[in-house]
Amino acid sequence: MNGAMRKLAVELGARSYPIRIGAGLLSDPANWHDTLSGKQVLVVSDEHVAPLYLDRVTAGLRDRSFSTLTLSAGEAHKTLDTAAKIFAALAELKTSRDATIIALGGGVIGDLAGFAAACWMRGIAFVQMPTTLLAMVDSSVGGKTGVDLPQGKNLVGAFHQPRAVIADTDTLSSLPDRELRAGFAEVIKYGALGDAKFFAWLETHAGKLLARDPDALVECIAHCCAQKAGFVTRDETEHGERALLNFGHSFGHALETACGYGSLLHGEAVAIGMHLAARLSVRMGMAADADTQRLRDQLTRFGLPTAIPAGTDADALLAAMRLDKKNASGRLRLILWRGVGRAEIAESVDESTICELLRESG
Amino acid sequence: MNGAMRKLAVELGARSYPIRIGAGLLSDPANWHDTLSGKQVLVVSDEHVAPLYLDRVTAGLRDRSFSTLTLSAGEAHKTLDTAAKIFAALAELKTSRDATIIALGGGVIGDLAGFAAACWMRGIAFVQMPTTLLAMVDSSVGGKTGVDLPQGKNLVGAFHQPRAVIADTDTLSSLPDRELRAGFAEVIKYGALGDAKFFAWLETHAGKLLARDPDALVECIAHCCAQKAGFVTRDETEHGERALLNFGHSFGHALETACGYGSLLHGEAVAIGMHLAARLSVRMGMAADADTQRLRDQLTRFGLPTAIPAGTDADALLAAMRLDKKNASGRLRLILWRGVGRAEIAESVDESTICELLRESG
Repeated sequence: MNGAMRKLAVELGARSYPIRIGAGLLSDPANWHDTLSGKQVLVVSDEHVAPLYLDRVTAGLRDRSFSTLTLSAGEAHKTLDTAAKIFAALAELKTSRDATIIALGGGVIGDLAGFAAACWMRGIAFVQMPTTLLAMVDSSVGGKTGVDLPQGKNLVGAFHQPRAVIADTDTLSSLPDRELRAGFAEVIKYGALGDAKFFAWLETHAGKLLARDPDALVECIAHCCAQKAGFVTRDETEHGERALLNFGHSFGHALETACGYGSLLHGEAVAIGMHLAARLSVRMGMAADADTQRLRDQLTRFGLPTAIPAGTDADALLAAMRLDKKNASGRLRLILWRGVGRAEIAESVDESTICELLRESG
Repeated sequence: MNGAMRKLAVELGARSYPIRIGAGLLSDPANWHDTLSGKQVLVVSDEHVAPLYLDRVTAGLRDRSFSTLTLSAGEAHKTLDTAAKIFAALAELKTSRDATIIALGGGVIGDLAGFAAACWMRGIAFVQMPTTLLAMVDSSVGGKTGVDLPQGKNLVGAFHQPRAVIADTDTLSSLPDRELRAGFAEVIKYGALGDAKFFAWLETHAGKLLARDPDALVECIAHCCAQKAGFVTRDETEHGERALLNFGHSFGHALETACGYGSLLHGEAVAIGMHLAARLSVRMGMAADADTQRLRDQLTRFGLPTAIPAGTDADALLAAMRLDKKNASGRLRLILWRGVGRAEIAESVDESTICELLRESG
């Protein structure tokens, strides 16, 4: 292994688990073998990741009864039908309750494989091996799993914590630039919602990070994971502050739904969504325009979009927002902010104010 | 309401919930209205139950935003595809996280609607309104939800406790005789696995129960629910003694899978399964043949089958048993007994002994 492994933990009592971050982790099973339980393993990956990294994982499974499943890549495949393919593979392997699923891929694979693990025999173990920046800093940590419906993102799912998160930063070398940039949207989110110091660090380290400097990336990923782990420990099932992690996501999910899954990457939608949330905060007198400007500059610096794609239907966006999981009994609940590092949960946001903003931006 | 309502509780801390049993409960919303949360309600029922009882429930929902979904009846429809229909109805109703699903029907409807409630937005509330004896005494209590796969029963599911169980014994008047008898298989199970006194009570009250004597039925249902509630309180997610409730079920589920869902009713399969478990216990020197005889007499008294249907393939049965959720790492784990009222978990049962038994019985 090159360089030092960074180790963190998500503290959840009996369900606590380690996060390990570093270059070359997958190639040496000693880095992750202890996180598997039972004799049977199903490795779930996608058509882009499997040709590159599946061998590294299966090489470490020679003492197990294992099988692999390679799925079509992309958000458009995060469906119940794809989950059914994982169930069929588990049945084929005659998997018992003490088996482990390994999710090798980005957020889509982690969400799908995690949901399958949550439901198979009412819950088996799974290990996240994220291969995208977005999955490493966000989706692989915290136990949110699920699939999309045509009506909305992640409408069907489960809270099911992984047994471990193994983030091999070597896998980022093959990540397309657009995917890397999309991952930085979630990175910027941590700064924007509650960590002004990190937001400033990103302003000065953008060049190194975009050039994929290994040390800067590990530093950045470890910082985000520590933030996420804290939120999850304090509020596992999102009855309170964990909702802040959805900064930019109510708009973002609605954009993904309204534009068609896969046309915007999740991170791109979140980038536009954070910008909309900041602008709405100004409109509602909660924040200064200078903060919106600073966020827009940061997003632009990392090559991320900030405007709603031309031709997006404002009514479709609003309809998708009404189905957001954070809403309660018909009231729109959004994460807004008072400025960089100070996000807040806003209950009962006035629909007409949102509508105005969307129409102006559309 | 005619007669007295019996009230029990499943004690699970913050997730505790009431079980209410009595004649006419559905007709008066005062009996169940307090168990609904949020403004939105989806009532899920099936084509047999809806025409008879759906109106009684919707009459009590005039102060809510509600919608109803009537599904095809029977175990063959307990699939992911049917769960997807419930998700579509929830999306259609623009259901938020504080909505409630009401499951009005037998075990299939309860398992399906409960699974949908477990997964919708990662978990919303649901209320069980069982209309079959089997659902009243067993499946509606305890939070096991799920769907079948072609490879096996309940392979996909979740532990998700209802907010209440409302068992209106008036609904049993419309239950076909065969369904009533199938329900008694689960009733007999409680006696067989751990309650010899109740087993004897059933021997003397079979006539009244089969004649649908209202008082005897309420007494019987309340007793079974109390038993079940105790097991669930002590071992919610089946890491220990709750497994005893699966007496007859490893064989039973395998029979249902091998014979095709819907050809045997679940209770019928469990009756045959209990008889096989008793015979296997004799073969393994754990129990006396006299106990098998007493069980067989009891099952016959309640009009239940005890023999594997002619033409059932022993190999297919064994294959289905290997996928049973209770197994661990390739070892067959079964619930056997030492006699009436004394079930035990048997680890690593020898496959060849089971195979011999199945071939002789097939």
